[in-house]
Amino acid sequence: MLPVVVVHGGAGHVPKERSEKATMGVSSAARSGYLVLQGGGSSMDAVVAAVSQLENNPLFNAGCGSVLNVKGEVEMDALVMDGKTLCSGAVSAVRNIANPVELARMVMDKTSHACLTAEGASMFARSMGVPEVPHESLVTEYSRMRWRKNLEPGADPVACQMGKMGTVGAVAVDVEGNVACATSTGGMMNKMEGRVGDTPCIGSGGYADNHSGAVSTTGHGETIMKVTLARLILFYMEQGHSVEAASDMGLAYMKSRVDGLGGVVTVDPQGNWAARFSSLQMAWAAAQKDMLHYGLYVGEHWSQNIQEPHSPHHADI
Amino acid sequence: MLPVVVVHGGAGHVPKERSEKATMGVSSAARSGYLVLQGGGSSMDAVVAAVSQLENNPLFNAGCGSVLNVKGEVEMDALVMDGKTLCSGAVSAVRNIANPVELARMVMDKTSHACLTAEGASMFARSMGVPEVPHESLVTEYSRMRWRKNLEPGADPVACQMGKMGTVGAVAVDVEGNVACATSTGGMMNKMEGRVGDTPCIGSGGYADNHSGAVSTTGHGETIMKVTLARLILFYMEQGHSVEAASDMGLAYMKSRVDGLGGVVTVDPQGNWAARFSSLQMAWAAAQKDMLHYGLYVGEHWSQNIQEPHSPHHADI
Repeated sequence: MLPVVVVHGGAGHVPKERSEKATMGVSSAARSGYLVLQGGGSSMDAVVAAVSQLENNPLFNAGCGSVLNVKGEVEMDALVMDGKTLCSGAVSAVRNIANPVELARMVMDKTSHACLTAEGASMFARSMGVPEVPHESLVTEYSRMRWRKNLEPGADPVACQMGKMGTVGAVAVDVEGNVACATSTGGMMNKMEGRVGDTPCIGSGGYADNHSGAVSTTGHGETIMKVTLARLILFYMEQGHSVEAASDMGLAYMKSRVDGLGGVVTVDPQGNWAARFSSLQMAWAAAQKDMLHYGLYVGEHWSQNIQEPHSPHHADI
Repeated sequence: MLPVVVVHGGAGHVPKERSEKATMGVSSAARSGYLVLQGGGSSMDAVVAAVSQLENNPLFNAGCGSVLNVKGEVEMDALVMDGKTLCSGAVSAVRNIANPVELARMVMDKTSHACLTAEGASMFARSMGVPEVPHESLVTEYSRMRWRKNLEPGADPVACQMGKMGTVGAVAVDVEGNVACATSTGGMMNKMEGRVGDTPCIGSGGYADNHSGAVSTTGHGETIMKVTLARLILFYMEQGHSVEAASDMGLAYMKSRVDGLGGVVTVDPQGNWAARFSSLQMAWAAAQKDMLHYGLYVGEHWSQNIQEPHSPHHADI
């Protein structure tokens, strides 16, 4: 059953013309993470590799392709957590770097802290030799178009956000049974400057514990925080529920208690995995036993040998 | 049993010459919160009143009296959470305001977000008419002395922090049975610029849910985050454990799993309350049924009528 990596590209509605590219993107990220695991890399190495690749893909709301805040700027949040030590690293409202998830890992590995924010995170990035990238390199035409639309009178950025893909993330178990999670996001469309969502908040955007498993979440951040969704799902698993049942219970609780939609990827230390969502869609992919699994719509589950090229399934191809 | 408010002034070691002032400070804050509740105020009104008073007291590590970051500056974190709605508000790494807990409440009440950080939080404060205070007004001689000592070669700010009082916080239940929590801090001594600890992180620095209760935590932030201490204690209460047992179980788990010390104040919606800590000391006070309860050392519990002036008990008087 080991190793395994599971990736999500954000809960929400994926426009038809983007659906094939979305499943290709998460499949490719899962492949990258799996290659790391096959090469003897740790689950932490694998989730950071997978999420970095999604940050570099302009299709997803993280790194390049992040949504814009109310001033038209990119401010990003990211989190990693290591299930062996329970150590975590996060950055919030960070600017001008290509891969926030890698900086989050540096916070975990190179400081005595668990989270650095805003200009403090930038100063740390500089001290680590992380290259500063121009703001424009993170902004896509699509992000700018959505930002402009949301400035129009009567616009509803929260509703609009659910019509776009959210946060990206990954969970993995390596051959030693260590679990890890990583989550990265540009946040909410047209958010206030300095807004921090669930992603860098341990227990909400993700959680990893070798005693139970790992979860990475996506959806409306402020709602996920109300129920500390990642930690909640792992509590259900500690009570004996399967990864799939616990994930569904967490999402059902968030729906019934605070009317929130979202999605998660979940693993346990034995290598059982789930990709579940209450939103219309969530692009996801998993790699295990040389097989690649992926899907986008509720109930959809395609499988192929991981060596084969990605097979198109969605109508836009 | 209702209403009730419980306050803490931070886990750690309280120097002997400060012990009486510490119990007086938390007792006075509990009285303020109780007055609000008696006047028909909500549990949220009460915890914000109590914590604001501790922020204004230069003895405690929050607001005026905050510890200094590595550059000798004050950057503060605060969180509030409303158990009725599960809505929360937080600020992180905010500067130049007297009462971060009040700004955290404004984030909850006046924005669609749950957390604002750094300069974004300052911009929001200005837009709300919150007065900017000079940096010096938040810095005490004591803070500056500790900061200088920690800059010396071989200094250990983490160990030193446990020799000083941490974060402050409060939990309350109002006559309608609504619970709330509030937590505020200057963070870790000589922390990196932009370091964010457990305090503004929902589930770690605090959590409140009318279905189970409310918790505010204090201790080494990075360790509290590893176990999402506030949410953990409420999970134990959801499983049927009392406020006291659940608080002790949470602290014992943090000790055994990640070798961390800390303290908590906890209430359930029926008005049962606990003030528990694994650190050497924690100044705490509770007000219920016109009685004031308070203590500082393990096992210490003084009680008096809330109308009476504070009775000195510690050796420094």
